[in-house]
Amino acid sequence: MSDITQAQADAVLSAARDSARETGTAMNIAVVDAGGNLKAFTRMDGAWLGSIDISIKKARTARYFDMATGSIGELSQPGGPLFNIEVSNGGLITFPGGLPLHGEDGSIIGAIGVSGSTVENDHTVASAGAAIQH
Amino acid sequence: MSDITQAQADAVLSAARDSARETGTAMNIAVVDAGGNLKAFTRMDGAWLGSIDISIKKARTARYFDMATGSIGELSQPGGPLFNIEVSNGGLITFPGGLPLHGEDGSIIGAIGVSGSTVENDHTVASAGAAIQH
Amino acid sequence: MSDITQAQADAVLSAARDSARETGTAMNIAVVDAGGNLKAFTRMDGAWLGSIDISIKKARTARYFDMATGSIGELSQPGGPLFNIEVSNGGLITFPGGLPLHGEDGSIIGAIGVSGSTVENDHTVASAGAAIQH
Amino acid sequence: MSDITQAQADAVLSAARDSARETGTAMNIAVVDAGGNLKAFTRMDGAWLGSIDISIKKARTARYFDMATGSIGELSQPGGPLFNIEVSNGGLITFPGGLPLHGEDGSIIGAIGVSGSTVENDHTVASAGAAIQH
Repeated sequence: MSDITQAQADAVLSAARDSARETGTAMNIAVVDAGGNLKAFTRMDGAWLGSIDISIKKARTARYFDMATGSIGELSQPGGPLFNIEVSNGGLITFPGGLPLHGEDGSIIGAIGVSGSTVENDHTVASAGAAIQH
Repeated sequence: MSDITQAQADAVLSAARDSARETGTAMNIAVVDAGGNLKAFTRMDGAWLGSIDISIKKARTARYFDMATGSIGELSQPGGPLFNIEVSNGGLITFPGGLPLHGEDGSIIGAIGVSGSTVENDHTVASAGAAIQH
Repeated sequence: MSDITQAQADAVLSAARDSARETGTAMNIAVVDAGGNLKAFTRMDGAWLGSIDISIKKARTARYFDMATGSIGELSQPGGPLFNIEVSNGGLITFPGGLPLHGEDGSIIGAIGVSGSTVENDHTVASAGAAIQH
Repeated sequence: MSDITQAQADAVLSAARDSARETGTAMNIAVVDAGGNLKAFTRMDGAWLGSIDISIKKARTARYFDMATGSIGELSQPGGPLFNIEVSNGGLITFPGGLPLHGEDGSIIGAIGVSGSTVENDHTVASAGAAIQH
């Protein structure tokens, strides 16, 4: 298993933070490793306190299922095949803002989770972090 | 960051309790500080036991996102952008009854959470507490 | 079962707070009812954040066993009959600062827990709250 | 209440990481704000997974009681005045590696927690982070 390095995680945080500044938002940004364990985290000044946990849960959710958190949310609605999956794993967050992170060889080396604004902005900032080439 | 004082928290509890008496309800009333930590709490005689935790969670939720709890609930419904956000942060309460508290300079110094009656009454009583001028 | 009223709980908090001021300490003070549920709480300005939970746990512990928390701590030491009882009930605190509260007829109507200074000061302030005549 | 900024938290993490490299250790380093909420975190490559939570709990413990975690541990031993305080607050860590962070005016603006080596090394690295002048 390839795993994200501290240098890579720092680059992901930095790219996401730059994106947050461009969008004028104050974000919580979390990076987990290939094992789903917290690797790096930063909270911008003024970012919502409740988004600390949500950003971490988004990153973990994205790595737990190797897909964008929003994709799981489409399946977890009432009547859907994964209804209320959110109660598992100590709490999943299934709306946008969490994305897998890929290594040079294309394998998943971790995930990023962003929370602090609209889910559209959260997703934009997470995407900026995930776009870093490793 | 300004933080609520004990004297301010007592004034908030007192105003909320007066409002509860006017509406003929028995409420649990919680105040958290700027960091989301419990600052003051009171349970009126006969108030629901299950509302102790709910009032504290409402206060915390309001501070965690710096908005009325009911505003989050509008976004967390099935099909909404924040579906099942309630599983985060050890449990959020997203129906009405939680409101941020503002200091003299307009900054948020804490939050109030009220639970014990209909959500309309909970909100009314929380509003009375939040209306105190600091 | 007699139960503590809000007026009684307020009087207990007030007496404990006066005692804290006399001793020059900043305390967290919690009162639980006969069922062990939180009835009233206040945090003095500057009191330790970690003592919020401890004050509540002291009050609950005192009511759960109807004795001073320190008395349980004497039995929970290594080699003692109640070794590590602290892990039960979601966490007990068994050092001084928690005391049962008695009603007019001598029955236990709740408990007080105080945390924020040395255990001697915590106990002194809790005693002041428990000395209130109901 | 003064609160730590993101720039300050980054400087603390950076100083602590430099110290870890000097001591040849792989550390988890956490910074919490004045309210005890996570502000920044980094895990060096190869650092123990079990130390993620410990570093965060050390930081929180240091802020919860405004003192070095090791000072609490001296009081929480069998027969000591704070025996088993560790079960409170969702889990405290009371051995060395957590220290308060002070602002320019001397007030506490947060705390740092370090875990990943011996407690002596953890404390050394935390001290390097805490020595940053804000």
